[in-house]
Amino acid sequence: MAAHLARRLLAEFTGTALLVTAVVGSGIMATRLSPDDVGLQLLQNSTATVFALAVLILVFGPVSGAHFNPVVTAADWWLHRGRPGAPTLADVGAYTVAQAAGAVGGSLLAGAMFEVPLGMSGTVRDAPNLWLGESVATAGLILLVFALARSGRAAVAAPAVGAYIGAAYWFTSSTSFANPAVTLGRAFTDTFAGIAPASVPAFVAAQLVGALVGTGLVLALYPAAADRAAAATASTTRPLQRRPV
Amino acid sequence: MAAHLARRLLAEFTGTALLVTAVVGSGIMATRLSPDDVGLQLLQNSTATVFALAVLILVFGPVSGAHFNPVVTAADWWLHRGRPGAPTLADVGAYTVAQAAGAVGGSLLAGAMFEVPLGMSGTVRDAPNLWLGESVATAGLILLVFALARSGRAAVAAPAVGAYIGAAYWFTSSTSFANPAVTLGRAFTDTFAGIAPASVPAFVAAQLVGALVGTGLVLALYPAAADRAAAATASTTRPLQRRPV
Amino acid sequence: MAAHLARRLLAEFTGTALLVTAVVGSGIMATRLSPDDVGLQLLQNSTATVFALAVLILVFGPVSGAHFNPVVTAADWWLHRGRPGAPTLADVGAYTVAQAAGAVGGSLLAGAMFEVPLGMSGTVRDAPNLWLGESVATAGLILLVFALARSGRAAVAAPAVGAYIGAAYWFTSSTSFANPAVTLGRAFTDTFAGIAPASVPAFVAAQLVGALVGTGLVLALYPAAADRAAAATASTTRPLQRRPV
Amino acid sequence: MAAHLARRLLAEFTGTALLVTAVVGSGIMATRLSPDDVGLQLLQNSTATVFALAVLILVFGPVSGAHFNPVVTAADWWLHRGRPGAPTLADVGAYTVAQAAGAVGGSLLAGAMFEVPLGMSGTVRDAPNLWLGESVATAGLILLVFALARSGRAAVAAPAVGAYIGAAYWFTSSTSFANPAVTLGRAFTDTFAGIAPASVPAFVAAQLVGALVGTGLVLALYPAAADRAAAATASTTRPLQRRPV
Repeated sequence: MAAHLARRLLAEFTGTALLVTAVVGSGIMATRLSPDDVGLQLLQNSTATVFALAVLILVFGPVSGAHFNPVVTAADWWLHRGRPGAPTLADVGAYTVAQAAGAVGGSLLAGAMFEVPLGMSGTVRDAPNLWLGESVATAGLILLVFALARSGRAAVAAPAVGAYIGAAYWFTSSTSFANPAVTLGRAFTDTFAGIAPASVPAFVAAQLVGALVGTGLVLALYPAAADRAAAATASTTRPLQRRPV
Repeated sequence: MAAHLARRLLAEFTGTALLVTAVVGSGIMATRLSPDDVGLQLLQNSTATVFALAVLILVFGPVSGAHFNPVVTAADWWLHRGRPGAPTLADVGAYTVAQAAGAVGGSLLAGAMFEVPLGMSGTVRDAPNLWLGESVATAGLILLVFALARSGRAAVAAPAVGAYIGAAYWFTSSTSFANPAVTLGRAFTDTFAGIAPASVPAFVAAQLVGALVGTGLVLALYPAAADRAAAATASTTRPLQRRPV
Repeated sequence: MAAHLARRLLAEFTGTALLVTAVVGSGIMATRLSPDDVGLQLLQNSTATVFALAVLILVFGPVSGAHFNPVVTAADWWLHRGRPGAPTLADVGAYTVAQAAGAVGGSLLAGAMFEVPLGMSGTVRDAPNLWLGESVATAGLILLVFALARSGRAAVAAPAVGAYIGAAYWFTSSTSFANPAVTLGRAFTDTFAGIAPASVPAFVAAQLVGALVGTGLVLALYPAAADRAAAATASTTRPLQRRPV
Repeated sequence: MAAHLARRLLAEFTGTALLVTAVVGSGIMATRLSPDDVGLQLLQNSTATVFALAVLILVFGPVSGAHFNPVVTAADWWLHRGRPGAPTLADVGAYTVAQAAGAVGGSLLAGAMFEVPLGMSGTVRDAPNLWLGESVATAGLILLVFALARSGRAAVAAPAVGAYIGAAYWFTSSTSFANPAVTLGRAFTDTFAGIAPASVPAFVAAQLVGALVGTGLVLALYPAAADRAAAATASTTRPLQRRPV
């Protein structure tokens, strides 16, 4: 079982790293190739993120659940605590560490690929309307993930979560970070997708508020969790868990 | 059963709100970031709407059917009246109120996220060729939704409806509002996606005409409604309705 | 059975009309909103076409097969002649007339929505390299459609054909008309997507050559047609044909 | 069985050719139509590639597996050597020749469609950070392909691989060639997508390094290959192999 947890943590670390690499790397490419139109840059950045996120959930989902996000892991623990297959509180801690480390590593990998000097971001993102954006973005993400999980439709989570972020980049004022680990990682690059370290705590706080709102909506709209065994049968994203490993 | 209706109305309210938030919010982001090219703004706006609409149908479909649109609810009542599972006329009224309230709320939420002053839209959209566009857009939407429902393919409604609107933004002269509730909500913002209040009634009338045309096409092309039980089995968007709640 | 054929012809007429409306209409919108960059116009035009084509195949597929294209109907007759469910030569004629009439009607509808004066296209598209583009585009389309049909995967035809055209708009020199009926319809509009009437015959001839090449590739790669009953079971695009109507 | 191999090689040749035609052709179209913004060109190029790659995998997957890439074929041999259905070392050699020949042919076909004079690329792509990009891109591709294959989800490979390349165009510094055969083919065109012949060997070496890393990740995350028979049942991409041909 320890080996199994190690494999899940490897998945969370690698998946979160590649997610941040995709977000930061495509942001750098966009600003270099389309210097004259910020909106076109964001379109390139969001398109690449949609594709990357969907693919990463497909790749890592069967191993670790492909959370890549501490508030998703925490909400999974809270909503399903005590049920078979749900993460324990220790899992939440271990996942969070792996996600945070991966996010920082992914940011550095993007910098290495594009020969960007090391350095923290100087992009201040500090305003109440941005925090409102983060809360809305995170509430929607939590609602989506667990609406699918609790109705036996986790098999479509990959394109659905990708699409959600692709929309939320545009309809929230903050461009939808919606992820404490990714927010931390994006502090480690002074490029398009960066966020000044001093702006991180308030963003994370707003995300936590959003996660609470989203969890409340899940309980209001999907009060009964789908039977996990039935959901697993319907799901194609966790097939390995149905075989002895 | 009252609790169940309340849950469905919460879904219609929240889903329609977030749909309008996505349409209005991404329109504001687009005009701010790409001020020099209206076509690029519309591409950003339509891309975000495609993703948002698909995701919202996934999230709310199993609870309320994810209509978000009074003419869809009304057509569902008319086409399937008297059959088990179809909305009653009272449902049509309740859904319409929830959708309209949600649309206005979503418009205001977008404004709050982007710090836009409160105010009604000043964008006049008044011309016979725009009304023709709305009729075409709404007819196509009704045809799509019920072609899928009546042939047991509601499971693909989420990406299909998203894609339809993504096309209709571009191929109709009116950019395809196609929804009386959303039209009302878009009157409550003086930004890219807004519509002057005085232009709303004619838009809604054109949508009603389109809904009639679309319903006629449904009856001509899919005269026999698929057996609802069989359709429900084939569908992944209403799984909760197959379990006692 | 006559009523059934009438319904199929209504589907081919309406579907081809809306396809041309989408191609022509989105082209007009694109040139009006992004006058400074032809590449951006084509991106808007191709994106709208991808979405529209996928949706139209979903809507009309269960009724008529959603060919919208005389060379697809003809190839279906040739490849599957004499087998149950395949079109007869009379069907090919009737489908072609419905498709051609629909294409012209769709072009006129787009013009009406955008208040474009009636008139034939003045865009000459006459060069051997464009004809090569049409042959390549049509060969690929035929190969795709029948590779899916002959391997029991018609259920994914809607997004697949949409995606194919979205690519072929860009990788062929002619922007991939690939359809004699649509080519004819596009002669009836003097806008972005138009083609001068004098250029139509050579385009159609190149499409026929491509259809022959594509059919040859189908026979080389998929020599055995999938059992139609098995394919129908696997397919979600023709569900109504499994019930008495 | 020889005839069967011939058909598989025809599929690999034709599929790789059309892939390179799509990459090179859409690059030429993009630079001609959007001369003022390189980022917009890359967005057009990557969008066309996403669609083309997904479609080509659908078309050729059931025949040959739709590798189009020597490192995919080699990794398939290494990971599954000795198991029924896996390629032999002789298959790896034959596939590689077919892929390389197809890639060159596809490059020439694109040039013919766009009337580009014959000639090798003059675009030097020589820098350690680009090689790092190629290694990352190829590792991710191998991980994706075999994560899906080893968990019985090959049916979603077509859109997933398309999406992956659509992201990697943007988040890797090298725009993600990730394929020795395609890299060779892209040396045969002096256009947007070209690469100088002298830059090819180092790109291929970096891709081989990435393939090793990706294979290691596959073994770490998916140590047990899914039972191939079970995977075949779950897969819709190889249906013909379940019938006598």
